[in-house]
Amino acid sequence: MTTRPSENPADLDRTDPEGEIAARAAAHRNWGRWGEDDVLGTLNFIDAAKRVAAASLVREGIVVSLAQAFDTDGPQTGWRRRTNPVHTMTDTGTDAERGNQGFPHGIGGADDVIAMPLQCSTQWDGLGHIFDHGMAWNGRRAGDVVTSDGDLVTGIEHTRTSFVTRGVLLDVAAHLRPETRELEDGYAITAADLEATIAAQGTSSVVGRGDIVVVRTGRYARTRREGWNGYAGGSAAGLSLTTAGWLHRTEIAGIATDTWGFEVRPNEFDVPSFQPLHQVVIPNMGLSIGEMWNLEELAEACHRLDRFDFFLAAPTLPITGAVGSPVNPVAVV
Amino acid sequence: MTTRPSENPADLDRTDPEGEIAARAAAHRNWGRWGEDDVLGTLNFIDAAKRVAAASLVREGIVVSLAQAFDTDGPQTGWRRRTNPVHTMTDTGTDAERGNQGFPHGIGGADDVIAMPLQCSTQWDGLGHIFDHGMAWNGRRAGDVVTSDGDLVTGIEHTRTSFVTRGVLLDVAAHLRPETRELEDGYAITAADLEATIAAQGTSSVVGRGDIVVVRTGRYARTRREGWNGYAGGSAAGLSLTTAGWLHRTEIAGIATDTWGFEVRPNEFDVPSFQPLHQVVIPNMGLSIGEMWNLEELAEACHRLDRFDFFLAAPTLPITGAVGSPVNPVAVV
Amino acid sequence: MTTRPSENPADLDRTDPEGEIAARAAAHRNWGRWGEDDVLGTLNFIDAAKRVAAASLVREGIVVSLAQAFDTDGPQTGWRRRTNPVHTMTDTGTDAERGNQGFPHGIGGADDVIAMPLQCSTQWDGLGHIFDHGMAWNGRRAGDVVTSDGDLVTGIEHTRTSFVTRGVLLDVAAHLRPETRELEDGYAITAADLEATIAAQGTSSVVGRGDIVVVRTGRYARTRREGWNGYAGGSAAGLSLTTAGWLHRTEIAGIATDTWGFEVRPNEFDVPSFQPLHQVVIPNMGLSIGEMWNLEELAEACHRLDRFDFFLAAPTLPITGAVGSPVNPVAVV
Amino acid sequence: MTTRPSENPADLDRTDPEGEIAARAAAHRNWGRWGEDDVLGTLNFIDAAKRVAAASLVREGIVVSLAQAFDTDGPQTGWRRRTNPVHTMTDTGTDAERGNQGFPHGIGGADDVIAMPLQCSTQWDGLGHIFDHGMAWNGRRAGDVVTSDGDLVTGIEHTRTSFVTRGVLLDVAAHLRPETRELEDGYAITAADLEATIAAQGTSSVVGRGDIVVVRTGRYARTRREGWNGYAGGSAAGLSLTTAGWLHRTEIAGIATDTWGFEVRPNEFDVPSFQPLHQVVIPNMGLSIGEMWNLEELAEACHRLDRFDFFLAAPTLPITGAVGSPVNPVAVV
Repeated sequence: MTTRPSENPADLDRTDPEGEIAARAAAHRNWGRWGEDDVLGTLNFIDAAKRVAAASLVREGIVVSLAQAFDTDGPQTGWRRRTNPVHTMTDTGTDAERGNQGFPHGIGGADDVIAMPLQCSTQWDGLGHIFDHGMAWNGRRAGDVVTSDGDLVTGIEHTRTSFVTRGVLLDVAAHLRPETRELEDGYAITAADLEATIAAQGTSSVVGRGDIVVVRTGRYARTRREGWNGYAGGSAAGLSLTTAGWLHRTEIAGIATDTWGFEVRPNEFDVPSFQPLHQVVIPNMGLSIGEMWNLEELAEACHRLDRFDFFLAAPTLPITGAVGSPVNPVAVV
Repeated sequence: MTTRPSENPADLDRTDPEGEIAARAAAHRNWGRWGEDDVLGTLNFIDAAKRVAAASLVREGIVVSLAQAFDTDGPQTGWRRRTNPVHTMTDTGTDAERGNQGFPHGIGGADDVIAMPLQCSTQWDGLGHIFDHGMAWNGRRAGDVVTSDGDLVTGIEHTRTSFVTRGVLLDVAAHLRPETRELEDGYAITAADLEATIAAQGTSSVVGRGDIVVVRTGRYARTRREGWNGYAGGSAAGLSLTTAGWLHRTEIAGIATDTWGFEVRPNEFDVPSFQPLHQVVIPNMGLSIGEMWNLEELAEACHRLDRFDFFLAAPTLPITGAVGSPVNPVAVV
Repeated sequence: MTTRPSENPADLDRTDPEGEIAARAAAHRNWGRWGEDDVLGTLNFIDAAKRVAAASLVREGIVVSLAQAFDTDGPQTGWRRRTNPVHTMTDTGTDAERGNQGFPHGIGGADDVIAMPLQCSTQWDGLGHIFDHGMAWNGRRAGDVVTSDGDLVTGIEHTRTSFVTRGVLLDVAAHLRPETRELEDGYAITAADLEATIAAQGTSSVVGRGDIVVVRTGRYARTRREGWNGYAGGSAAGLSLTTAGWLHRTEIAGIATDTWGFEVRPNEFDVPSFQPLHQVVIPNMGLSIGEMWNLEELAEACHRLDRFDFFLAAPTLPITGAVGSPVNPVAVV
Repeated sequence: MTTRPSENPADLDRTDPEGEIAARAAAHRNWGRWGEDDVLGTLNFIDAAKRVAAASLVREGIVVSLAQAFDTDGPQTGWRRRTNPVHTMTDTGTDAERGNQGFPHGIGGADDVIAMPLQCSTQWDGLGHIFDHGMAWNGRRAGDVVTSDGDLVTGIEHTRTSFVTRGVLLDVAAHLRPETRELEDGYAITAADLEATIAAQGTSSVVGRGDIVVVRTGRYARTRREGWNGYAGGSAAGLSLTTAGWLHRTEIAGIATDTWGFEVRPNEFDVPSFQPLHQVVIPNMGLSIGEMWNLEELAEACHRLDRFDFFLAAPTLPITGAVGSPVNPVAVV
């Protein structure tokens, strides 16, 4: 029925985001693939055998956190009310030491609260995070899924056991830019780039069903040198819209990057557009996307060990009805 | 110097919490054990070999979440400003479907924010959470550690890679109360009870250095039947103050329960007292405590498999300066 | 066209809320009365002469606050995510005194944040707070007015200069229940009750165009004796649905009560119903409603002075797009 | 005892903030003036006669709001966790129109929450906001007054009836810079400038006991042209430290400006300093300070009417224990 959309960015009609998106949505749509009640999408690719195999990758006993910090000094600038977390204390050690807390026998305590957007720092997008022409994952009407009461159908709490599987680092930046190890802003990573990185990194990088792929662009490394500087919402390297086919046929369970937006920015059109690859992969393909991950220590470890796959546990917080979750993904090698 | 404190609750002087606490604090204090700059306490017991061994426990490929829900229908009642989480949407599917979000080419989105105490639901206590006579973990002054700016020394972000190890379920409730599988409120679990449970459950339950022990009292199971009913701050079974020695000599890395407060409530004194075991183990021993865990599905799986140890990944959110962290602990067997 | 709806509660068809509401909505609808762009509704009744006359009521120089407290010990129970305010410190005097704030020359500071529903305590409802069959004030579609981005048309910020006028206290409780000065829960205040109270209180109570009427039921007085006990959302005396005509023909600018919900609860139907008078007066009449006001000190002053009108300044916080506002109304006599 | 400190900025020892502050603190300290239990400071200057006289200024019936907006597009940048307000909806018109709220008979609703620092926009400082060498207003130890539980002594709730009095606009910018009506950043307004402005504006500007003075620098007018651009915490005109004597001897009840920080910035020292005039007037003098007020419409009205005094109602929200309050001050002329 539909022709397979091109995987070469040069073939994109840069004046027609709607058409280019629609073609890929149609070609790679997974609606109904796991039943009409499905709430997990490609996370269904992770099975028990996959998890057992993933655990066998733990050989060194080294844990690496893939999370950025959660604090006021973050990248957010208030766009669409996305602010940095505000963490405040309701009890402190200063008070405890002064003895004004009203507790007996010398016990004192500190306690705290946080207010934050669920997408303020390292996070998973839920399947209710993005819609395509008013439709949500699996062919549901967006307004039947996410109201002011939250995501009533595909809330992030349904994924509480999902994010445990084999992870694979594709350090595209190190492969394509061996000197700087950073891709330039606006660089659109292609399916060919992903395959070339796999080939260069070797067999531990081969990607298959149920894996979670983490793609390093070097954008976060740059923030460590020069400050946030547009990290949230600005320009960055990222996946090309044309990788939709690769994301689909590899049957990966999820993908995460070290950037704000996962896909290349500015987006690949000459007319107004906004996150076209999200529009294809979240509501249509049911793919889980992670953003703002910190891949620096992981990359260092993988290159040192010359091994690019690992056991990944990146459990969401089961916030009822959430369309995303902050996360501290841990890679164990 | 100090006599070993009794491990029999009947020996406690119920009129002298200060003395009973001080004796155990002195006997089991780990200050300086991992250097004067230490920020991890007993988490130091987890080493690479421990992690590799833990991963070998993944044989079935089953993941169980040990988290309770995070939503408004939680146990909190406002005590010391501990409320339930408030999750609100900044963009919804209803809006997206109506087409009023201002995005191009039919993309729509949903986004959300949360405001919550870090101890509102399933959580880890940080080492800055409790003080003993104005002193924090490792012998620091409480006011030098936790100010209004948060925990400047032992903030939870330091544990971002720590909570990956072998977990062991001790289903004390099922062992002591085989019919109801629930301990009655106020039951003080003793070291002898813990050892008896281990003996009954078998070799997979033997506890040692670097393990994280999860103790099931059945209190959370009861909330599923009868509502929260005092779950936060009310009466519950829990560890006796007299287990401090067991917690110390086993060299476990952490312990978590399915109750609000980990230790038995009411506490074991006839005069005003408040969480005396916390006062011993957090600032003095440096032990990590988890509370409000959901151990129901885990217990079901362990009894079914007749195996009580598992790979545990319970990564904290690296909230800079936090004295606790919400967590979705995942057990993998 | 429409018959004037009855003002006698006995005439209500207690099985037909929809019909009873619709009749009153049709009879008292003010759509278009102040132009199609109107965002103020009955606040338009307040003019310059009204304000000058109101100021002439300041003779004693006494100020009374009509606000309840804003803190954790409030009436909210979490219904529809309405919680009590959570106020936390970001800097404290304890820290300042200890000298750890990093400021020069001995200056220290305290600072704070709050998280709260805008309807958590004493408040004004905005015109975007209630809809009738999907329609908002002045005949606009609800979804064109209030999205996830807030009230785009009638946001509370438009009222920033509106709430300055003559106020009139109608102490219905003191008039009808001279001994207890408290109406019993479920008592439906009628138009006749309001007129009788005016007659009994005397000429200073005569209500007219542009006034803001505050009706005392005694419900808040009871909370001071016995605790909140269902104050938010429970039973209470309040205005009968049948007062809609009185609220319309008096041409008052606004009305406030000392209860959670302004109208009588349980509502006056034997079938499921919810705040029917709101449905008539906010979207159809454009009337501003205040709730959870503290009228105790005002009532004491008015009875003592035997004067029931006063200068009222009850300015909303201009929170852009809000559908309500916390307020500290001050009465000056 | 103490020499009267100079009111000429040229006399300041720009290397000795500590000494210059201490001299003025000693000269103008009001501790004990209103009793040892006082919690209001100079607000005590406002008496009943003052309020009656203030009400007589209402002649035109015009209300002007002196508030800036409360929304995400505000001046805050996160300094010391001061962010802009985050206002989110818990129910919307979009949902109501779609009919998914679960209410009977066609009623629908919108509801909202806010999270904000109390000093994020137009505000009053409480007396617990600033300390001098660990001492708070009236000679109390800072740590006895403001803990993590808030201001236990001088919380803003004590001022709920205080801010009703005569207001006087001193449009220093229009007087000193008649062409631009904006003072340049860093301009230190002197007592002589204030008196010259009064003289130029005429008798309606004479300042006396119990007044609240609002000083226009033009800084906020500039933000309307060029964006916030450092409005929060950056450079601005403002009161010189040397005005402390004028603020004391006029016996005003409060003062507010159209700037972030009330006093001139950068501060008037060549060594590190921070808000020295705050340190003198809040903890020592007990003076209420308002900041980030919008004086543009007020200035327009006052110049048009050639009258600079007005009735001012600027009621704080009675947030228990707060050290400041957002406010919508209304001037009525």
